[in-house]
Amino acid sequence: MPISEILTSTTFQMSLLLFVALAGYLISHRINQSAIIGIIVMGIIFGPSLLNWITYTDFVETMAHIGAIVLLFTVGLEFQIKEITKVKYLLIALIGVLVPWGAGYLIAGAFDFDFKAAVFIGTALTATSIAITANVLSEMGKLQTEAAKAIIAAAVIDDILGLMALSVSEGIVSGDISTVSLLITLGKATAFVIIGGLVGQFIFRRLICRLDDSKVCHMYPESVFIYAIMIAFFYAMAAEAVGLSAIVGSFLAGASFAGIKLEKGYIFREGAHHLQIIFGAIFFTSLGVIINLREFSLSLLVFTLVLTVVALLTKLVGCGVTAKLSGYSWKDSVAIGTGMAPRGEVAMIIALIGLSQGLVTQGAYTSVILMSLITTIIVPILLKTLVFKEGRQPSLKKHKIL
Amino acid sequence: MPISEILTSTTFQMSLLLFVALAGYLISHRINQSAIIGIIVMGIIFGPSLLNWITYTDFVETMAHIGAIVLLFTVGLEFQIKEITKVKYLLIALIGVLVPWGAGYLIAGAFDFDFKAAVFIGTALTATSIAITANVLSEMGKLQTEAAKAIIAAAVIDDILGLMALSVSEGIVSGDISTVSLLITLGKATAFVIIGGLVGQFIFRRLICRLDDSKVCHMYPESVFIYAIMIAFFYAMAAEAVGLSAIVGSFLAGASFAGIKLEKGYIFREGAHHLQIIFGAIFFTSLGVIINLREFSLSLLVFTLVLTVVALLTKLVGCGVTAKLSGYSWKDSVAIGTGMAPRGEVAMIIALIGLSQGLVTQGAYTSVILMSLITTIIVPILLKTLVFKEGRQPSLKKHKIL
Repeated sequence: MPISEILTSTTFQMSLLLFVALAGYLISHRINQSAIIGIIVMGIIFGPSLLNWITYTDFVETMAHIGAIVLLFTVGLEFQIKEITKVKYLLIALIGVLVPWGAGYLIAGAFDFDFKAAVFIGTALTATSIAITANVLSEMGKLQTEAAKAIIAAAVIDDILGLMALSVSEGIVSGDISTVSLLITLGKATAFVIIGGLVGQFIFRRLICRLDDSKVCHMYPESVFIYAIMIAFFYAMAAEAVGLSAIVGSFLAGASFAGIKLEKGYIFREGAHHLQIIFGAIFFTSLGVIINLREFSLSLLVFTLVLTVVALLTKLVGCGVTAKLSGYSWKDSVAIGTGMAPRGEVAMIIALIGLSQGLVTQGAYTSVILMSLITTIIVPILLKTLVFKEGRQPSLKKHKIL
Repeated sequence: MPISEILTSTTFQMSLLLFVALAGYLISHRINQSAIIGIIVMGIIFGPSLLNWITYTDFVETMAHIGAIVLLFTVGLEFQIKEITKVKYLLIALIGVLVPWGAGYLIAGAFDFDFKAAVFIGTALTATSIAITANVLSEMGKLQTEAAKAIIAAAVIDDILGLMALSVSEGIVSGDISTVSLLITLGKATAFVIIGGLVGQFIFRRLICRLDDSKVCHMYPESVFIYAIMIAFFYAMAAEAVGLSAIVGSFLAGASFAGIKLEKGYIFREGAHHLQIIFGAIFFTSLGVIINLREFSLSLLVFTLVLTVVALLTKLVGCGVTAKLSGYSWKDSVAIGTGMAPRGEVAMIIALIGLSQGLVTQGAYTSVILMSLITTIIVPILLKTLVFKEGRQPSLKKHKIL
C-alpha cells in the first residue's frame, strides 16, 4: 500500500490517536495531573502546533463527535436528581452560570471579538467540570463536608444550565436577536429537556427494565447495552434535529438511566464506561490536535490570561457570594467558589461546536481550551494550599472521568 | 435541521444501526438462532432489499471496518496455542481448508464467474465459524468429547489458515499469477504472521505486563485498555501496509495478549468485549445492509444453493475423511466434518473485502453471505438431530461471539 494511503487509513489514524492518548496518560502520571490535561497536551504536541504527525481529518472529527456524545452520556448516567433539589444549590449554580456568561461576553467584546464569538466565549465559561474538584475533594477526604456537597450538587445543575446556555447561544447566533426569538429558543431548550426527560423516565427507562426482565436479556445480556447506546445516539439525533447540540441529548439519555439497578443487563454501565475510555481519549486528543499554537499571537495570549482570570473570579464571586447569602460561612463560601471554578469537557465541547460552526476563530477556540486547562491545573492547587489547608487524608475516588 | 441532513448525520446512522441490531437480537431469540443470524436478517430487511431505511454509506463502511478489526481482535484474545499443537488437528484443519478452497474455485468457475471472483469465493469457503458449533456442543454438554476437542482445535487453526488463504488470494488477484509471485505472497503472509507473532509475544505482550505493573496503571487502569486497542489498530495498519487484510493484523494482536493475566489492567479484556458488542453488531448489520435482494436473480439463487451444498460437503469430506485417517471412529469423524461446516464472520469479512475491492459482484457477495447464514442455521440442526442424537444436557456456554 502506498504511504499516502496508509497515512489516511482508518487503522493508522485510530492507532495514532490512541498512541497520543496513551502518551497523555504517561505524562499525566509524571506531572501528577488529570489524564485529560496530559492527553490534550500530547494532542497539541503531536498536532499541527509542533510535530504535525496528526491533523483534524473528517475521520478524527467523526470519532471526536462520537466521543463527546458517549462522554456526556456517561456524565448523565451519574446524574442524581435528589442531589439537586435544594433551592440554595440551584441558586449557587444559576448565579454561577449567569455571571461568567455575562462577564465572558463583555470581555470578549472588549477584545474586539464579534457578537457571535463573544456569545460563545461567554457560554464556554458557564459549565463547571465536576470531575477535577470531586477528585481533589475525594483525595483530601473532604467529600462529606457541607461545602463539598454544595459544590457537587451545583456542578451537576451546572451541567444542565451549561447545556441550556449552549442551546440559547446557538439560537442567538443563528437568527434574529429579538426578545421573542430568545424566548422561543429558551422555551425550545426547556421543552426538549422536560419532554426528553419525561419520555426518558417513563418510556425508555421502563423499556430497559422490561428488556432486562425478558428472556431475550437472559439469552443475550448484551442486548441491554446495545439498547442503551442506541438511546444515547437517538437522543443526540433528536437534539440535533430540533437545533440543539447532540450532547444535550446524550446527557438526557444518560440521566434517564441514572441510578438504575438491572439484574442481567448491568453490563450496559460498564460497557458505556469502556466506550467512553476509548472515545473519550480520542475526543480529548482531538481537542489538542485542533489547536495550532503556531498561529497563536501575543494578543491572543493576553486574551487567554485575562479570560482565565475572569473564569476564576466569576465563579469565585458568582458562586461564593451566592453561597454566603444562602447562609454558608465565609470559609465554606470561598471553598464553594473556588471548587466551582475548573472548566472542563463541557467548555471544550462548546468551544469545539463554535469552531465547527465557524462562529469562533481558531484563536478564540485555542484560548478557551487553554483557559480550561489552566483553571483545571490551578484549582486543585488553590484548594489544597489555600482553602483546605489542615492536611489531607487519603480516601476513595468518586465520579472519575478519565 | 433539515431532514436530509438528519438522515446523513452520524447520530441518526448510529442509532438506526443499533436499532436494527437490537431488532436482530429480538428476532434471534424468537427463532432460537444465533444473534448473528437475526442481526444480518434485520440488516437485509431494513436495507435496500426491502425497507431501504438504511444504506451502506461511507460512515457505515468505516464503522463496519472498525467492527471487523475489533471482532478479530477478540477472536485472537481467545486463541490458545496449546490447543493446536497436535499434528492431527493441523491436518484436519489444513485439508479442511484446501478442499473447500479448490472446490469453491471450481464451482464458481463453472458458474461463469471470472478468475478473481472464483478465487475469492473459494477463499470465503475456507474458514470455519467456531462460535456456532461451540455453542451447540456446549448446550449439549459435549464440549469434553474427543470430537469436540478436535473441532475446536481445528477451527482455531482454521482461523489462521483462512486468513493466510485470504492473504494469498489477495496476492493472486493483485498481480501476475506465476508460481514465483504466489510463493512470494505466501512467504509474505507467513513472514507477517511469524514476525508479528514474535514481536507481539516478546515486545507488546511484555510491555502490557510492564504497564500493568507500573504506577501509571495503578492511577489509570484504563491506560492498559487504550494500549491494547492501540496495538490492535497498529497491527491492523501494519497488515494493510504490507498488502494483507487488516483483520489478519488485529487477530495477531489479540493472539499476542491471549491468556494473559493482568493485575489491574484486566479491564482491557472486558473493554475489548464491550467494544466488540457495539461494533460487532454494527458490522453484522452492515453485512445485511449491503445485500440487495432486489437484484438477486434465479441463477444466483441456484448458485447460492449449490455453493451451500459444496460448503457443507467439502468440510464434511475434507475434515471428516482426514479425521478418519487420523484414527477417529466413523461417528466422531462425521461429527468433526459436520461441526466444521458452519461459515461465519471470517467468510463474511472475506466476501466484504472482495466486494469492496471490486473483485466479486454484488450477487456473488450476496451468495456467500447467504451460504454462511444457511450453513450456520443447518449445522446445529444436523448436529442435534443426526450426529449427537442421544439427548442433550444443559451446560455453560463457552467462547461466545454475540
